[in-house]
Amino acid sequence: MIVDLTDDEARAALPLKWGTVEPGVVPGWVAEMDYALAPPLVDALTAAVARGTTGYPPFGDGGIGAAFAAYAGRHWSWQPPEDATAVVGDVIGGIRLAIETLCPPGPVVVPLPCYPPFRDIVALTGRELVTVEVDPDAEDAALDLGAVEDAFRAGARTLLLCNPHNPLGRVASRTELADLAALAERYDARVVADEIHGPLVLPGATFTPYLSVDPRGILVTSPSKTFNTAGLHTAHVTALDPADQARLRGVPLPQNHAYSPLGMLAARVAWTDCDAWNAALVARLDDQRRLLTRLLADRFPAARMRPLQATYLAWLDLRAYAVDDPAAAALAHGVRLSPGGDYHQGLTGHVRMNVATSPERLGLMVDRLAAALG
Amino acid sequence: MIVDLTDDEARAALPLKWGTVEPGVVPGWVAEMDYALAPPLVDALTAAVARGTTGYPPFGDGGIGAAFAAYAGRHWSWQPPEDATAVVGDVIGGIRLAIETLCPPGPVVVPLPCYPPFRDIVALTGRELVTVEVDPDAEDAALDLGAVEDAFRAGARTLLLCNPHNPLGRVASRTELADLAALAERYDARVVADEIHGPLVLPGATFTPYLSVDPRGILVTSPSKTFNTAGLHTAHVTALDPADQARLRGVPLPQNHAYSPLGMLAARVAWTDCDAWNAALVARLDDQRRLLTRLLADRFPAARMRPLQATYLAWLDLRAYAVDDPAAAALAHGVRLSPGGDYHQGLTGHVRMNVATSPERLGLMVDRLAAALG
Repeated sequence: MIVDLTDDEARAALPLKWGTVEPGVVPGWVAEMDYALAPPLVDALTAAVARGTTGYPPFGDGGIGAAFAAYAGRHWSWQPPEDATAVVGDVIGGIRLAIETLCPPGPVVVPLPCYPPFRDIVALTGRELVTVEVDPDAEDAALDLGAVEDAFRAGARTLLLCNPHNPLGRVASRTELADLAALAERYDARVVADEIHGPLVLPGATFTPYLSVDPRGILVTSPSKTFNTAGLHTAHVTALDPADQARLRGVPLPQNHAYSPLGMLAARVAWTDCDAWNAALVARLDDQRRLLTRLLADRFPAARMRPLQATYLAWLDLRAYAVDDPAAAALAHGVRLSPGGDYHQGLTGHVRMNVATSPERLGLMVDRLAAALG
Repeated sequence: MIVDLTDDEARAALPLKWGTVEPGVVPGWVAEMDYALAPPLVDALTAAVARGTTGYPPFGDGGIGAAFAAYAGRHWSWQPPEDATAVVGDVIGGIRLAIETLCPPGPVVVPLPCYPPFRDIVALTGRELVTVEVDPDAEDAALDLGAVEDAFRAGARTLLLCNPHNPLGRVASRTELADLAALAERYDARVVADEIHGPLVLPGATFTPYLSVDPRGILVTSPSKTFNTAGLHTAHVTALDPADQARLRGVPLPQNHAYSPLGMLAARVAWTDCDAWNAALVARLDDQRRLLTRLLADRFPAARMRPLQATYLAWLDLRAYAVDDPAAAALAHGVRLSPGGDYHQGLTGHVRMNVATSPERLGLMVDRLAAALG
């Protein structure tokens, strides 16, 4: 059911991931998958183009709130109200909107490593950034709640949570999230939870939607990571308090107008008609995880991979190989990976590897990385 | 070559324009057209969906700068450098980016009437708004350069120009624009020119690209108004100074990331392969303008229509009929028009009527407006 794209097909489909590498280089960097779109999405989008649905999006959420609630109920046994969701253009735009409209003044806590635009978005809102670091030598990459409390005590009033975590691949436990929620409540702080990788939790881990433990939390998500539709520009923000929902919906149009009718359609279809494809994808990613684990054990016995509990983004600690920038070294050997320092400034010896490709390309990536690290 | 959509087709294609009115009501409000997409766009988008081009857009402009330069050269005998253009998500986002990155601090002048998001966007940038009004009784709705100079003298350093003008339907002359450019230069102010209606100049008028008279001007445009593709989210900003181009391109990703790969493709195709369709559209709009002029003379001899030199948006002064809100009255009689007060707060007795529909629907709109005004 998961159809691998050939190199030529992938180059035509994914101009960012594939268009930025020379022919012959395997791109394992940006978070896109080298798989054909889910057939229900192709069918729905083709019909929409034939109808001419390229103009302004409708008012309202186009049924996305109900579709997402049903998906969450089926997959996570948690179901927000159908009318609790507002459409936005993408997750980063949704985080910005959440900060600007719902979060109290004060610094914003961003745990590191993080998706780099998290830092940019805090700057764009004019808020101070406070980082809380995961020690790369920690046994478990859990959020340091002591450091979070210090930040709240010093005045921070927002925390950007990424769960499942990019780039760590980690799924937070219900207990950890409940502890974070208690802390946020005590300091009157808000947690903005980016859960875009929620549908990509792999066998062995259990995903806890943050709002199921913190009704004051703000959820930002999209099917775009799971279904390769980031370029259609539709994500959504869910808040359980009707006053918050009214604030999100009440902003002037130019503050939240980046969503598209094709993206809204794709979101509704993805949350409604694509469970079988989603399951096949998770099975494929589980296979890729197993293959990577085996290849690493063979080729890089001193490498350390954070347990890949979710996402298709493996976080590799290669410090034992004494190469400060293994991504640069790998690129010279024909594979483009993401440098760890992009996610945690100053961190050396780490890379993020995107495994959402064919087994053959994953093998090539590891071979070439091995050559690069000598 | 211009294919009219049936009511059912239009309702399926245009969820904002048609989805917000009851069945039977003719929607003549938001600026979308009741015509099928240009065939080269349908072909290109269908192929792109089949390829799976729904992920992240590429770096760079995807050839849009060159395609737009060639279009401008063919149509307006003016050709910006091919590398002078940066892609943005939409015109309003482009105006925001231009203000935030290129315009000196100080208040922003917005001529009234205006497209309502112009006011919102100034507020979002945190700048003070200064309005300069066109007197509804003026013989010619030219920009009041004396008032603009007063605003510049008082500290304003940016002016948002809309040319061809929405909602006035007016095309500024080269002389007027040159006078504005001289004024801007004298006060070290920048003019941000929204020229999205440039390809919709009707027979009898001549369009002057603002940058052809002011090399310090900043152009924001998109093919989306001419080709009904606003929902694909691609527009572009052209600045002639390479330092300005570098500033536009150097912003952090989340400050300018709302464009899409499908929109970029559509823009390149629209500027390259759709001249014949564009010409057929202009011919149809010229017919619609002629029909409206005749219908108004028959049914509303006391109405005054601003000369519709460009756009498909007619600005009607109905004050002689002594109805404060003719749009509300019209809606009660089965036609949705845009209230003049949306564009010029406090202005009564005016409506904006969208004529980009079939002759039959234009006839219905006028009949029902006539009934509404008793």
